[in-house]
Amino acid sequence: MSTSLHPELAALIAAIKPADGSAMRAARERQAQLTKPAGALGDLEDLAVRLAGVFGTEQPHPQGVAVLVAAGDHGVAAGGVSAYPPEVTPAMVANFLADTPAGPGGAAVNAIARTVGARVYVMDAGVNADLPEHPALFRASVRRGTRDLRSEPAMTQEEAGASVLAGAALARRAIEEGADLLIPGEMGIGNTTPAAALTARLLELDPTRVTGRGTGVDDATLLRKVDAVRQALEREGSGRADPLGVLADLGGFEIAAMLGMMFQAAASRRAVILDGFVEGSAALVGVALVPALRDFLFPAGECAEVGHAAQLAHLELKPMFCLGLRLGEGTGGVLAAPLLLSAAATLREMRTFAEAGVPGGA
Amino acid sequence: MSTSLHPELAALIAAIKPADGSAMRAARERQAQLTKPAGALGDLEDLAVRLAGVFGTEQPHPQGVAVLVAAGDHGVAAGGVSAYPPEVTPAMVANFLADTPAGPGGAAVNAIARTVGARVYVMDAGVNADLPEHPALFRASVRRGTRDLRSEPAMTQEEAGASVLAGAALARRAIEEGADLLIPGEMGIGNTTPAAALTARLLELDPTRVTGRGTGVDDATLLRKVDAVRQALEREGSGRADPLGVLADLGGFEIAAMLGMMFQAAASRRAVILDGFVEGSAALVGVALVPALRDFLFPAGECAEVGHAAQLAHLELKPMFCLGLRLGEGTGGVLAAPLLLSAAATLREMRTFAEAGVPGGA
Repeated sequence: MSTSLHPELAALIAAIKPADGSAMRAARERQAQLTKPAGALGDLEDLAVRLAGVFGTEQPHPQGVAVLVAAGDHGVAAGGVSAYPPEVTPAMVANFLADTPAGPGGAAVNAIARTVGARVYVMDAGVNADLPEHPALFRASVRRGTRDLRSEPAMTQEEAGASVLAGAALARRAIEEGADLLIPGEMGIGNTTPAAALTARLLELDPTRVTGRGTGVDDATLLRKVDAVRQALEREGSGRADPLGVLADLGGFEIAAMLGMMFQAAASRRAVILDGFVEGSAALVGVALVPALRDFLFPAGECAEVGHAAQLAHLELKPMFCLGLRLGEGTGGVLAAPLLLSAAATLREMRTFAEAGVPGGA
Repeated sequence: MSTSLHPELAALIAAIKPADGSAMRAARERQAQLTKPAGALGDLEDLAVRLAGVFGTEQPHPQGVAVLVAAGDHGVAAGGVSAYPPEVTPAMVANFLADTPAGPGGAAVNAIARTVGARVYVMDAGVNADLPEHPALFRASVRRGTRDLRSEPAMTQEEAGASVLAGAALARRAIEEGADLLIPGEMGIGNTTPAAALTARLLELDPTRVTGRGTGVDDATLLRKVDAVRQALEREGSGRADPLGVLADLGGFEIAAMLGMMFQAAASRRAVILDGFVEGSAALVGVALVPALRDFLFPAGECAEVGHAAQLAHLELKPMFCLGLRLGEGTGGVLAAPLLLSAAATLREMRTFAEAGVPGGA
């Protein structure tokens, strides 16, 4: 497989190195001296140390926050696996870009991003529609939606690779424009079905354990989803062993694009906030290919979608909250950004016991 | 009891009215039309509706965030119930106010507040030390620490009432200066012991079920804490039935001050973010006296302190995250502020299915 890897993709992957262990040790030592009881900031302390490892300094100072929403359509949507028609995908892309009295974008991710000061990037990774020209739309559609994964590979290797590189290119742009915390987000009617197929394949779990209600499907639709995942996993020619082969076979264009964003962020030593289940499926592909990618991933919440907990357990990463979110768009990731920024701030801005003259330091 | 209530306190309590049910209904109706699957924003949807009820409009727009850190000392600290000496209380007050390269304040709450744009107010509610003059220190000390609750009432009714009113006064100032989300916070070596005593008394639970390790005490100290709580609950003259009587008997000056902040916020129809266990003990007193206060309380996280879960279950309020925080200072509350601001933003800034031309609205 690796012999056929696009040289640019091979270079991107090769650029990903593990977190900086000495910066993490220095951060841990500094943390022990700060004016608080040992461990009193709970999980925030581990997050701060992990950020030190990402940014390679005991006092990390991440600033810009960007959510990169990739949109794509799915051949399997014809199989009735969603509560919404595929026309919602382009309509929501338009909603992400719309002029509204509050500013650009009328979707949840826009409202939340404005609140926390995150920049929103929108990407056509493979929407099955003519999208209107818009200066804020990153056009990187490889194909108008995937093929139906029930009966054939969703993408060719070349198509999937092109989407990965397109996602990486958008992440590079966001980083050049100041992003230190990158949040891959997605919009794609039907996309929890490929995400479930990827998760089932990569974690070797039965489809019933990783296929959920997505946007809120009824029982009959849920059974169709499970059946679609099972058909995909059992069809002839599936069962590739290489992660990018699995991605092409079962994934989606926005999933491939989000993987590229994660690769670029890690290669550029920026942190990735992982939103939900679809993002998690991209992360599973990435970590299977490049284990060091894990060091750069910070899960936001445990989303309501069944199978997300299995992803996080496999990644050995603990989410920051459990708000029952199941929207996607990167919404949960954007909500988590202030927590990560705050964690880093404690390492930079808190005084030590000695500096503050407070009795009781370690 | 109510006959002896200070007229100003009686007026404050009388001004607290329940949340606005019609604004909540209108918010719920609007929410059903927004461009997202029903329920997909999880707990954020309930938080948004509750904020509508607090601010009395279907599109609430809370802006300023303020954390009000009340400090007090505790006679029971002489009983060896903390891992830190009482001198830490004034030292940490100085730390909250210190000039640092990052700005005012070198404690965790300062670092986090700067990150999320919250203003920090510091209050001497009853510290056992000469605190230096500082323009940002709200001086409202009623007494230099409480009496030892193991052997006598911690405060007189008059002292407790004065602290409640002082907390309300600081909250009024914060509201006048733009605060819509108020976060009572605390610093007081030994204060998880009175908080446990209040919680045990008000929820009628055994001391072992609500007494925890606070800043991180060892087993022997934990047993002394449980014993201190038990002595307080069993001593002659305790067992007052009126909530303010219980507060005076078992509480602390910073706990009384935080109760006053909550009363004032509710009376002024602002939201209160509840940080941890000590804040929770003040909330239990408040809700016992004025059940409508509950409508204004938004718990941040479930803190690591045993007994906090019991408080939240009694209040029937669900926390926003579980990060294992046990620092106090209002840190968890400040971390939660962006989540609440974001929840409100979805009601104001998201377009409806009809506005966005997205198929599939309810």
